[in-house]
Amino acid sequence: MDYRIEKDTMGEVKVPAQAYYGAQTQRSVENFKIARGTDRMPVEIIEAFAFLKKAAALTNKEAGVLSTEKCDLIVQVCNEILEGKLDGSFPLVVWQTGSGTQTNMNVNEVIANRAQVLTGGKLTDKEKILLPNDDVNKSQSSNDTFPTAMHIAAYKMLAETTLPGLEKLYHTLLLKSREFMPVVKIGRTHFMDATPLTLGQEFSGYAAQLEYGISAVRNSLSHISELALGGTAVGTGINTPKDYAENVAKKISELTGLPFVTAPNKFEALATHDALVEAHGALKSVAVSLMKIANDIRMLGSGPRAGIGEIHLPENEPGSSIMPGKVNPTQCESLTMIAAQVMGNDVAISIGGSNGHFELNVYKPMIAYNFLHSARLIGEGCTSFNDYCAVGIIPVTATIRKHLDDSLMLVTALNPKIGYYKAAEIAQKAYKEDKTLKQAAIESGYLTAEEFDKWVDPAKMVGRE
Amino acid sequence: MDYRIEKDTMGEVKVPAQAYYGAQTQRSVENFKIARGTDRMPVEIIEAFAFLKKAAALTNKEAGVLSTEKCDLIVQVCNEILEGKLDGSFPLVVWQTGSGTQTNMNVNEVIANRAQVLTGGKLTDKEKILLPNDDVNKSQSSNDTFPTAMHIAAYKMLAETTLPGLEKLYHTLLLKSREFMPVVKIGRTHFMDATPLTLGQEFSGYAAQLEYGISAVRNSLSHISELALGGTAVGTGINTPKDYAENVAKKISELTGLPFVTAPNKFEALATHDALVEAHGALKSVAVSLMKIANDIRMLGSGPRAGIGEIHLPENEPGSSIMPGKVNPTQCESLTMIAAQVMGNDVAISIGGSNGHFELNVYKPMIAYNFLHSARLIGEGCTSFNDYCAVGIIPVTATIRKHLDDSLMLVTALNPKIGYYKAAEIAQKAYKEDKTLKQAAIESGYLTAEEFDKWVDPAKMVGRE
Amino acid sequence: MDYRIEKDTMGEVKVPAQAYYGAQTQRSVENFKIARGTDRMPVEIIEAFAFLKKAAALTNKEAGVLSTEKCDLIVQVCNEILEGKLDGSFPLVVWQTGSGTQTNMNVNEVIANRAQVLTGGKLTDKEKILLPNDDVNKSQSSNDTFPTAMHIAAYKMLAETTLPGLEKLYHTLLLKSREFMPVVKIGRTHFMDATPLTLGQEFSGYAAQLEYGISAVRNSLSHISELALGGTAVGTGINTPKDYAENVAKKISELTGLPFVTAPNKFEALATHDALVEAHGALKSVAVSLMKIANDIRMLGSGPRAGIGEIHLPENEPGSSIMPGKVNPTQCESLTMIAAQVMGNDVAISIGGSNGHFELNVYKPMIAYNFLHSARLIGEGCTSFNDYCAVGIIPVTATIRKHLDDSLMLVTALNPKIGYYKAAEIAQKAYKEDKTLKQAAIESGYLTAEEFDKWVDPAKMVGRE
Amino acid sequence: MDYRIEKDTMGEVKVPAQAYYGAQTQRSVENFKIARGTDRMPVEIIEAFAFLKKAAALTNKEAGVLSTEKCDLIVQVCNEILEGKLDGSFPLVVWQTGSGTQTNMNVNEVIANRAQVLTGGKLTDKEKILLPNDDVNKSQSSNDTFPTAMHIAAYKMLAETTLPGLEKLYHTLLLKSREFMPVVKIGRTHFMDATPLTLGQEFSGYAAQLEYGISAVRNSLSHISELALGGTAVGTGINTPKDYAENVAKKISELTGLPFVTAPNKFEALATHDALVEAHGALKSVAVSLMKIANDIRMLGSGPRAGIGEIHLPENEPGSSIMPGKVNPTQCESLTMIAAQVMGNDVAISIGGSNGHFELNVYKPMIAYNFLHSARLIGEGCTSFNDYCAVGIIPVTATIRKHLDDSLMLVTALNPKIGYYKAAEIAQKAYKEDKTLKQAAIESGYLTAEEFDKWVDPAKMVGRE
Repeated sequence: MDYRIEKDTMGEVKVPAQAYYGAQTQRSVENFKIARGTDRMPVEIIEAFAFLKKAAALTNKEAGVLSTEKCDLIVQVCNEILEGKLDGSFPLVVWQTGSGTQTNMNVNEVIANRAQVLTGGKLTDKEKILLPNDDVNKSQSSNDTFPTAMHIAAYKMLAETTLPGLEKLYHTLLLKSREFMPVVKIGRTHFMDATPLTLGQEFSGYAAQLEYGISAVRNSLSHISELALGGTAVGTGINTPKDYAENVAKKISELTGLPFVTAPNKFEALATHDALVEAHGALKSVAVSLMKIANDIRMLGSGPRAGIGEIHLPENEPGSSIMPGKVNPTQCESLTMIAAQVMGNDVAISIGGSNGHFELNVYKPMIAYNFLHSARLIGEGCTSFNDYCAVGIIPVTATIRKHLDDSLMLVTALNPKIGYYKAAEIAQKAYKEDKTLKQAAIESGYLTAEEFDKWVDPAKMVGRE
Repeated sequence: MDYRIEKDTMGEVKVPAQAYYGAQTQRSVENFKIARGTDRMPVEIIEAFAFLKKAAALTNKEAGVLSTEKCDLIVQVCNEILEGKLDGSFPLVVWQTGSGTQTNMNVNEVIANRAQVLTGGKLTDKEKILLPNDDVNKSQSSNDTFPTAMHIAAYKMLAETTLPGLEKLYHTLLLKSREFMPVVKIGRTHFMDATPLTLGQEFSGYAAQLEYGISAVRNSLSHISELALGGTAVGTGINTPKDYAENVAKKISELTGLPFVTAPNKFEALATHDALVEAHGALKSVAVSLMKIANDIRMLGSGPRAGIGEIHLPENEPGSSIMPGKVNPTQCESLTMIAAQVMGNDVAISIGGSNGHFELNVYKPMIAYNFLHSARLIGEGCTSFNDYCAVGIIPVTATIRKHLDDSLMLVTALNPKIGYYKAAEIAQKAYKEDKTLKQAAIESGYLTAEEFDKWVDPAKMVGRE
Repeated sequence: MDYRIEKDTMGEVKVPAQAYYGAQTQRSVENFKIARGTDRMPVEIIEAFAFLKKAAALTNKEAGVLSTEKCDLIVQVCNEILEGKLDGSFPLVVWQTGSGTQTNMNVNEVIANRAQVLTGGKLTDKEKILLPNDDVNKSQSSNDTFPTAMHIAAYKMLAETTLPGLEKLYHTLLLKSREFMPVVKIGRTHFMDATPLTLGQEFSGYAAQLEYGISAVRNSLSHISELALGGTAVGTGINTPKDYAENVAKKISELTGLPFVTAPNKFEALATHDALVEAHGALKSVAVSLMKIANDIRMLGSGPRAGIGEIHLPENEPGSSIMPGKVNPTQCESLTMIAAQVMGNDVAISIGGSNGHFELNVYKPMIAYNFLHSARLIGEGCTSFNDYCAVGIIPVTATIRKHLDDSLMLVTALNPKIGYYKAAEIAQKAYKEDKTLKQAAIESGYLTAEEFDKWVDPAKMVGRE
Repeated sequence: MDYRIEKDTMGEVKVPAQAYYGAQTQRSVENFKIARGTDRMPVEIIEAFAFLKKAAALTNKEAGVLSTEKCDLIVQVCNEILEGKLDGSFPLVVWQTGSGTQTNMNVNEVIANRAQVLTGGKLTDKEKILLPNDDVNKSQSSNDTFPTAMHIAAYKMLAETTLPGLEKLYHTLLLKSREFMPVVKIGRTHFMDATPLTLGQEFSGYAAQLEYGISAVRNSLSHISELALGGTAVGTGINTPKDYAENVAKKISELTGLPFVTAPNKFEALATHDALVEAHGALKSVAVSLMKIANDIRMLGSGPRAGIGEIHLPENEPGSSIMPGKVNPTQCESLTMIAAQVMGNDVAISIGGSNGHFELNVYKPMIAYNFLHSARLIGEGCTSFNDYCAVGIIPVTATIRKHLDDSLMLVTALNPKIGYYKAAEIAQKAYKEDKTLKQAAIESGYLTAEEFDKWVDPAKMVGRE
């Protein structure tokens, strides 16, 4: 490969001749050969950097500390990054310095070098129109830019992927709940037959879970909307112009269309990632809910002949390479795997969040990586589960009816009439003698057939509405 | 031991002659000999049951389904439970049935039997004035009482122990932050010397962390304030009188003085514990914050001669059985152990929360146990840390000054004057030649001694206020 | 309460007049009011301390650094501790100093003061026959005694409770596996009907899981058998006589009857708890296995009329306070709650283990607490599950037969005869037209009734033995 | 894009015209649009499939159930896969069906279609020389191939990446330990000054940690070496020729050069992933060790002027975009981020492992993904940490000496001479009056200057060797 020589404060480095990135990026490439095939710094972080570098340049210009020419160049390259034109220029992995400094410098170098070329220069020019540290990074530090990029990327992912996916599934479950409201079926507690409810009531519980979950995720947005930018090296804002923090947050808000503000306490914003720890706690709660919902749905759909079999799921793929005709609840499987992943990611993020020292948490790339992973998985997983499973669920009426008719727990309706003890006798008798509840009830002598029919009516046992 | 014979729907059981509990409690005692020395059902759950049984009796009476005499008796025994008079009557462990049915029956049995004695009867009477299932448990199921007890106990613990502890520590940190605001000191990022900030700014970050954490815990109270009671067996409210759910929640709210309401969706309230999963997520976030704060404080106080040594912590106990005169940051250690415990409890709760099936989550006692454990540990841990550590922290001015004077990172102030590259040269020169920054700066020729003194002023590097 | 005045190197402290413990214990009581009702230092740790103090005294005597008289006294009090005679003397909680120094001093003080009384002295005597630090703690530090106590307690719990419980359950599952080997039943993959196996094969999988788990736990014993004692303050063995570490380990081995040895590297043994982290990893693996086994068993036993219902579990307790006659798989619930707890404890221990600094890990009491908790829960939980569930499991032959006969996945036997595609056609036809597989097969024209009977024989589909 | 029509048992599907994969792969592509940019099925799993498909073909041929021609074709395409020639043919994501059936079919389809082209046919040929299910998948099911692929990939990763990385770092730490053995330095417990040890002793603890960790990982290999192949659909081995399981394991062992054997219990091998849960427990233990080691090293190297500063780490990259001349312990940061990730992955794997139902665990792709992730991160992370940090660590002798000379805890050496209490008095006096220990000792009158010099010799306090 062809190389050119680049320099940073530590000396000379050989960089691929055509790469827009420079010495510091190259050092990181060489020093961190870890999971290079899979664990690149998430593209959402790079995009967020483009937003913030652009906002910083504009704010610096307005503050009179950056020339219009330089500002325009920075803006131009940032736009190219946002358009995906420079995708090959960000080769760094997650497992680099814990501050993400190397990715900040990667972006600074790419902007400076690309600007050189855009203005007719060459990558090998000794004099550069933009300096990575002095111009592109002006009024910034890795220590405030990286957490800012984390918040921008996290907010965008939550707003554009996670919440829409959750809401889509929530609405389907709500519709299903209404559609299934008249379908009386057996309830199950402890995985054992219990008193009846309607299939719609059962689904209303799932919808309620997501409603709470969506609300929890929304609650977490406010802390994420606070940006560290302007804190620079340790939170004091050294080397920033007056009102910079407020102005640059406003600019980012305008550019992204999202309600970002400057963090009221920059020390917290650099030294901790409590905002993301807290928000991921909400994602983990949602994962817990999704595991329950997907488990229920796969179990309710189990069979077709030796399972619960009360609902039918869409048949999407042949389910077995050896068992012909088999169909499986694959969307449930995908979603529960996602739930497990998010619960694991939560531990990684919590550990990272708890181990910050003094003025800087240095688990930033790992936290960003796991947060964005979870947020995407939940959003896209819910959309997939919705489109290929939830929308197509239909009740298997015959099975539902059979289970209900066989049920012994309808006996519960007799408690207020004959007392718990006698009711238990009847249920036990029916179970042991393999009879219907009605048979056993009549044989018990505690009530008549007419009373049984009047008192034991599943449709009346599912509530008042 | 003396025994008497008690009966339930499964037959006869030998129960200790003087025990107020009955057959079903005894069965659980015998069938679950697991961690009996340590893992009793938390007393807070028993108390919460006393509140709810009392509220249920009053509501049943008002609905006309329970006689005044029976209601009064139930209320009387519940009051005894709340006064701690029946503490020996609840022998069950956490590791019982996952619905907590056995603890619900334990309470039902104790109320019925104690009422018998209170009205002049004997434990061996065949006819009882109160029946555990038909009277004490009227309009209830374990499936709605146990989650209701969980929410009552959780809310009370958060309100009475967790939040007061957090707020106490928050206020101390805030005061310390103000007190220490003029103390300029070296910052540290990556555990390496960085640009200065004030000790007050550093502590303001800790205070901000707790402020967010307190807010997150408060946010979680609303979902916990929703009670399952009235859902009975599967959420449909079978065997409850009209408006029972709303009325009983109101009654519980009156009795506890806390803003409980009936859960809008009882299916969610029985089948899941998302409210507690979500709330514990907030506790876990707080644990993450506390780990960071306690770590920083122990590291800032490390030494006395070969550590950081910038603050001095109260000396509470001799620190070593072998090293005379040693003093250790023991409150930090206690608090970080608590943080680790809470992070572990979070996983246990999440796993339990995710594994509910159909109409009932059967990890209830385990979830209650861990939630109450975490909530107490954080509350009492913060109070302890506050009283025996935080309030007594004082800066070690001489060390702070020395570290600041030696610092090379004050060079950052030169960036806007001479550029990042030349500034780096100066810092590297000072480091390699073991000189002060000023010496190196002057020798570099990039600036004069006067310029150095004017430009490099730590007090000006810590922000505008 | 009456008090006496005790002194330590920090000054005077008021101690309850009759308490055997002294000043340092009292300081800890006052400074750590955290979860005092529930979270005492585990009694197993106190017992382990009695073993090691006794062993240290004997070893010191033999080394000529402790008089026979003093040694005998120490041994005498340690014996009293082991007999449980001094149980009220150890009031400290887990949430104290992270080295457990305060518990080490608690033991030292109790031994010294109890010896004073045993020799006719009084607790208020100025001159003591034994000094807590100089005599009882001779050749020791908290930093090597506490980890030693952790290993002794952990090893004993694993050997006396965990492994016996696991082995008991393993043997039952093995027996059940053999007993059920002829019972051909439908298999389930993805919770959907699959090709047949025998119930015995299914249970052989559970037995195999425990066999591997037992082996993993056993593998972890070797590292736990290594004792830190002799490392004293930082691992160098300062203030110990010659060959002390080897001799004291030998003595502990004799006293406990367990194969303890001195740790080859004392620095690892003080600064880390990798041995317990690793061993708890094995316990967590076992918890994962138990969750699967208990889940399967509760699902196989679900019903009685609207579930899988292929096995019948012992009926131990009335299952519902509202649904008469209900019986639930309560042992499965207890065991899966335990599994969740152990998985949570694993995270707490890992976090504690990872956060040691320099020469000492200061998460010791928390790690000990969680380790002993998990080890006990698994041991006692398995015993309970074995005695009250596993031993009584019986197949429900009629249901098993019905599920098998209805099954469509028997079609898999046709793959080698007519190919996967045609076989799939038959299965789909049977499913859609609600026919038996045989009907559909014959109607398909791909094979005759005779061929079907010959080729599709569940008994031949379950393997060769 | 151009399409062709492919068919499976569910009907027709449009597939990209040039793709080697077929209908079932395409269905998965369309139904699981989840994290497609990042979460492809790990390439190691595809490679493992190539090994096992080849081994299965050869074994089938030898058993007389597959023609030589078909076998040769399968082998030929598998070789192409192993050479990376068909890399674009495996588009599926991790978040698919939990059995990995779709990836098994992806491989089956690619082999069949590529064989068609290799033998001069076209992808659109109606008649195919190889059938994906009947030929390529002969004597196999997804349910035994996917777990087999997981074990092959896991074993290879552990053997080729994880263990070599760990061993490399272990050897460096061992060498450093020997090199630093004479360097006497202050010890630190509770992050506070303690008695001395040598820097070599400190590093010997790190080396010992890795030695145990390597041993734990090795211990886990035996269970992973057991292959599920031959169990087919549910573990019974339906549709396999005689001795197939043993023979195919032997073949895989030959092809990979690794000691694979057939699993003694196929039911355990399909229904659980306990082998990987257990092995990942060992990886997690190692992560815990690495977190401790990397933390210590970054703290020992902290400064340069206001930290501990006792060792010097290689300077690899400029450490700050704003603070000129700053250098950070970036390899420590990368490694501790990896440790956090592995600890999180452990929870994801444990949850997946615990939630298998009946004859099949359907969290397979998620478990594989996390296991391979952790194993690679540890291996490559250790190599990186070794090459760019550990090998270059040097002691900063002046600082080490200064810390040692200032230390008060050398007083511990006086315990056996004057007793713990008097020694404590001296230490406290020195601390409060800011004197050297020697000054305070002499002033105390408890010993002479000569005695002090004789008794308090750091070099004698670090052990006997």
